[in-house]
Amino acid sequence: MPHAQPTSKPPIAQPALFEDERAGAIYRTAAAMIRRRGFAQTSMAEIADAVELTKPGLYYYVKGKQELLFSIMRYAMDLLDAEVLAKAQPVADPEARLRTIVGQHARLLMRDEHGALGILIDEVEGLTGAQKEEIIARKRRYFELVRDTIGALRRQRGLVGIDLTAAAFSVLGMIMWLSRWYAPDGPVAGDEIAKDITEIALAGVLADRPPLRSVPAE
Amino acid sequence: MPHAQPTSKPPIAQPALFEDERAGAIYRTAAAMIRRRGFAQTSMAEIADAVELTKPGLYYYVKGKQELLFSIMRYAMDLLDAEVLAKAQPVADPEARLRTIVGQHARLLMRDEHGALGILIDEVEGLTGAQKEEIIARKRRYFELVRDTIGALRRQRGLVGIDLTAAAFSVLGMIMWLSRWYAPDGPVAGDEIAKDITEIALAGVLADRPPLRSVPAE
Repeated sequence: MPHAQPTSKPPIAQPALFEDERAGAIYRTAAAMIRRRGFAQTSMAEIADAVELTKPGLYYYVKGKQELLFSIMRYAMDLLDAEVLAKAQPVADPEARLRTIVGQHARLLMRDEHGALGILIDEVEGLTGAQKEEIIARKRRYFELVRDTIGALRRQRGLVGIDLTAAAFSVLGMIMWLSRWYAPDGPVAGDEIAKDITEIALAGVLADRPPLRSVPAE
Repeated sequence: MPHAQPTSKPPIAQPALFEDERAGAIYRTAAAMIRRRGFAQTSMAEIADAVELTKPGLYYYVKGKQELLFSIMRYAMDLLDAEVLAKAQPVADPEARLRTIVGQHARLLMRDEHGALGILIDEVEGLTGAQKEEIIARKRRYFELVRDTIGALRRQRGLVGIDLTAAAFSVLGMIMWLSRWYAPDGPVAGDEIAKDITEIALAGVLADRPPLRSVPAE
């Protein structure tokens, strides 16, 4: 396995909701701070300091702390939609579709240096009811794509007997865990890791149940 | 797949460090509060209230908030050692050992109603340097058991080409994700989920790389 780093990283697409670069910089800096310290422990004053604005200057860009959290989560869901859902949904073959989901999602997480995608997981309780509903509905749509793809793949191969919800969360857990352990300066290149995780997820969801029979040698 | 709940849950073993039941109750209540709200947002006064003690009464049992966090993490590591490591280490066959690891760890997480094992993941930054070192060293010991077991299994089957660190974190991510989605009152029994995840993890780490060849039908 090559241990060299990829020579360049694809840039993170700027989502449409960042109308100007100052707003984008605020969201990214805030995401990194919230990811590191938690939403409750990060004040608007500290975010203003970090982006070199006065507090009133910061409020020109964002209406408040909760609104800022919601903007970051929308940004993360926009990235997931653009980089994973939009690329996977048109793929007809379920194996190829699952490969696209796992590979794209893993690569997206590995270049999420500001941690916006991590906030999507950990900070949903900081939202208002309506905001939470929107984010949860978008997450559910993605979950259902993963589960339905695994279901189609297993039906195609004539496999039965594994709970599809457990299989879908297993694949998602495998991918999401990347944000806890992947180090961009580690010994294995991100692209190699994405390929490995794709093979592990594919082989995993094709598991037989009851337990794999040991076929006696003839 | 049966959708009935198991009729009884095995009780969580009381670790030796809970000398009396009052201390145990404090740790469990505090674990649940910290898990729900985060370490920084949970005060000793609130914990005292929740366990019906005065604040000085609480300090009779625990020296301080950081000491309490460390006690909860030690308790979680003791559970992991007793329920997973101690049961897996004596198993010579790597497939059987990996089945023991995944099945035991998944079952332990699913009955961790107070969330002590979740704190192990999320709150390590709240510890002092020496405390952090102890917890990290114990976690690393467990990680190495998982990675070495996968390595032994793949060598036994003559498989090459997947990074063992990526494979080990994939299996751990799959298991740890359970604490985010498993609901004790959900439609599938915990034991069935543990069995499914064991099969998915086993099949996953036996993945071939380069991509699984599609064998043409004869």
